Amino acid sequence: MSAFSRFTPLAASLPSTVPFVGPEAIERNRHLAVKARIGANESSFGPAPSVLDAMRNAATETWMYADPENFELKEALAIHHGVSRDNIAVGSGVDGMLGEIARLIVEPGTPVVTSFGGYPTFNYHINGFGGRLVTTPYVNDREDLNGLLDTVRRENAPLVYFANPDNPMGSWWNANEVENFAKSLPDNCLLILDEAYCETAPKGATPDVKALIGLPNILRMRTFSKAYGLAGARVGYAIGTLGNVQAFDKIRNHFGMARVSVAAALVALNDQAYLHEVVQKIDGARTRISAIAKANALSPLASATNFVTIDCGRDGVYAKAIVDGLMEHGVFIRMPGVAPLNRCIRVSAGIQSSLDLFEEALPKVLKKLA
Amino acid sequence: MSAFSRFTPLAASLPSTVPFVGPEAIERNRHLAVKARIGANESSFGPAPSVLDAMRNAATETWMYADPENFELKEALAIHHGVSRDNIAVGSGVDGMLGEIARLIVEPGTPVVTSFGGYPTFNYHINGFGGRLVTTPYVNDREDLNGLLDTVRRENAPLVYFANPDNPMGSWWNANEVENFAKSLPDNCLLILDEAYCETAPKGATPDVKALIGLPNILRMRTFSKAYGLAGARVGYAIGTLGNVQAFDKIRNHFGMARVSVAAALVALNDQAYLHEVVQKIDGARTRISAIAKANALSPLASATNFVTIDCGRDGVYAKAIVDGLMEHGVFIRMPGVAPLNRCIRVSAGIQSSLDLFEEALPKVLKKLA
Repeated sequence: MSAFSRFTPLAASLPSTVPFVGPEAIERNRHLAVKARIGANESSFGPAPSVLDAMRNAATETWMYADPENFELKEALAIHHGVSRDNIAVGSGVDGMLGEIARLIVEPGTPVVTSFGGYPTFNYHINGFGGRLVTTPYVNDREDLNGLLDTVRRENAPLVYFANPDNPMGSWWNANEVENFAKSLPDNCLLILDEAYCETAPKGATPDVKALIGLPNILRMRTFSKAYGLAGARVGYAIGTLGNVQAFDKIRNHFGMARVSVAAALVALNDQAYLHEVVQKIDGARTRISAIAKANALSPLASATNFVTIDCGRDGVYAKAIVDGLMEHGVFIRMPGVAPLNRCIRVSAGIQSSLDLFEEALPKVLKKLA
Repeated sequence: MSAFSRFTPLAASLPSTVPFVGPEAIERNRHLAVKARIGANESSFGPAPSVLDAMRNAATETWMYADPENFELKEALAIHHGVSRDNIAVGSGVDGMLGEIARLIVEPGTPVVTSFGGYPTFNYHINGFGGRLVTTPYVNDREDLNGLLDTVRRENAPLVYFANPDNPMGSWWNANEVENFAKSLPDNCLLILDEAYCETAPKGATPDVKALIGLPNILRMRTFSKAYGLAGARVGYAIGTLGNVQAFDKIRNHFGMARVSVAAALVALNDQAYLHEVVQKIDGARTRISAIAKANALSPLASATNFVTIDCGRDGVYAKAIVDGLMEHGVFIRMPGVAPLNRCIRVSAGIQSSLDLFEEALPKVLKKLA
């Protein structure tokens, strides 16, 4: 064996895995070209032109490390949200920060609560620290707030994950329900409120930042990867109390942010007009994806995200055949991982040409499977 | 207190700290502008023009996550080094990967060997996983290979860190000595051979990649942050056995690489002519820094890195006064953190205008301190 002999027992026990296979790997493994990249909830509408300019200008500064304190970005985010700089922690996307939170709270055996079928990368990080995932099922394709709360109490869990709006179903709760849930949690259980998709949610779905800002058991996660169109930049942030924000400084990779990415995020935040424009385009794309689904006798779910989850009316084998079949046509989409959610496929809002391909390919795939 | 109540005992015990204060923080805290940024061993010569072009072109792709397998970059690196793709792990700079290695090997109390005064970020990560750092002093301003080996044996340590060339002293060992050291280690001790500065080392200082490739207790760390001029991109890699490379896949943030950064690294690797040019410029800058030191009756040490460490002939208080005094003139440099190394200051090779400022400011600072 070519592996070192003294990895920790935990490390030795972990599989070498990947939470999501990337479209590039699919291309290589299946010898197919991705023509419509609408599977990873990236925004093919892209970032603002102002952001692209900023990135191009910042390239010449790339010989310098980024400011390890992320001072400017934190200040801009604080102003944007009407909070203090001390309430903002910046990191390499929500994914990276989920790993940091796991590290701060999870030891081997620690119970951690999430929904069955929720975000696989969160589960990956919890498993990576030896945590014990305790799940509660979705109810009516929504995360079950009561179920999460009951499970937290039953397990005396120090950590619970809840995404609003939700991935992979696109569903959501209203702000007051989220707020009630957050405040009902025992104060010795930290809520990761993943709001990666909040920019595309309807009004009234996202609690005001100030509503939960003082609570030491809540971290709200935001990202530039979705509506801002900067998935490849890896910039996310957490909003929380000073003490929790400082906790990241115990373990994070201080010089871990790409300088061009930070410059991009700063300009993206300041270009809210473009964000507004994109959110409308995403809404248009959702409408179109839903219409395509219906035209093919499938049932789109309502979505507060930059994707539409489509109920294909049968089981996971069938949905997977659709996913695989679409890829034969160069259309890359994904699907939820577990039953009963895996009766669905998940299609990201994207530019017209991508949805054209989807529209063209879907009936062919369904016909072949009939 | 505004911190969550149930962080792990280890996390709760850790300080919120930063391995290095950034120049931006110094600017903010001291209300001084950095005019010569020659303190963090960045390369003000910058990356190749071809790299800047690639970054500007890649900006439009930044709406997409980078390939989580880093296939293309790994393939290019494998070809460059004459090894297999399976021997390359890519990560967010050496800093980030040091944290990953620590996580794979270190549990609370695990003895980890390094040199007293060696790389602070390595120590930060070891402390962050509760490891017990056991150090051996530098001898004649070089890391002490025998001392490291003895300490590993005495402690039965599973992990030892050694940088060749060394930071912060700029010293180095020859390839055959490094190779002998590596092969003398017990096979249940993993050597992190940090070669961040290998591109600027003299011929014969760096073991051939193939010389150590089959050993499951060696990981060689390389970076695009130094001679390649891409510190702000955060791209590093490890060369090792298949088993060790796969170990990163157990815990890394698969979607953690910035897409523009990966594009930059790929082109940088392919532009070896530019690298060669920069290495010559760095050599010229080293010569000039040494001459400036001598002209001021200070003693430059020989350097295999992109910086020159200068013995100021007195104690750490004196060296720190020089560092602080230079900053008054807008010249940002750093210094080693512990005695006896901290009798020195450390000046990064940089563009002419930066060294002009250093040359102008140094005698003024020394005069004021006399």
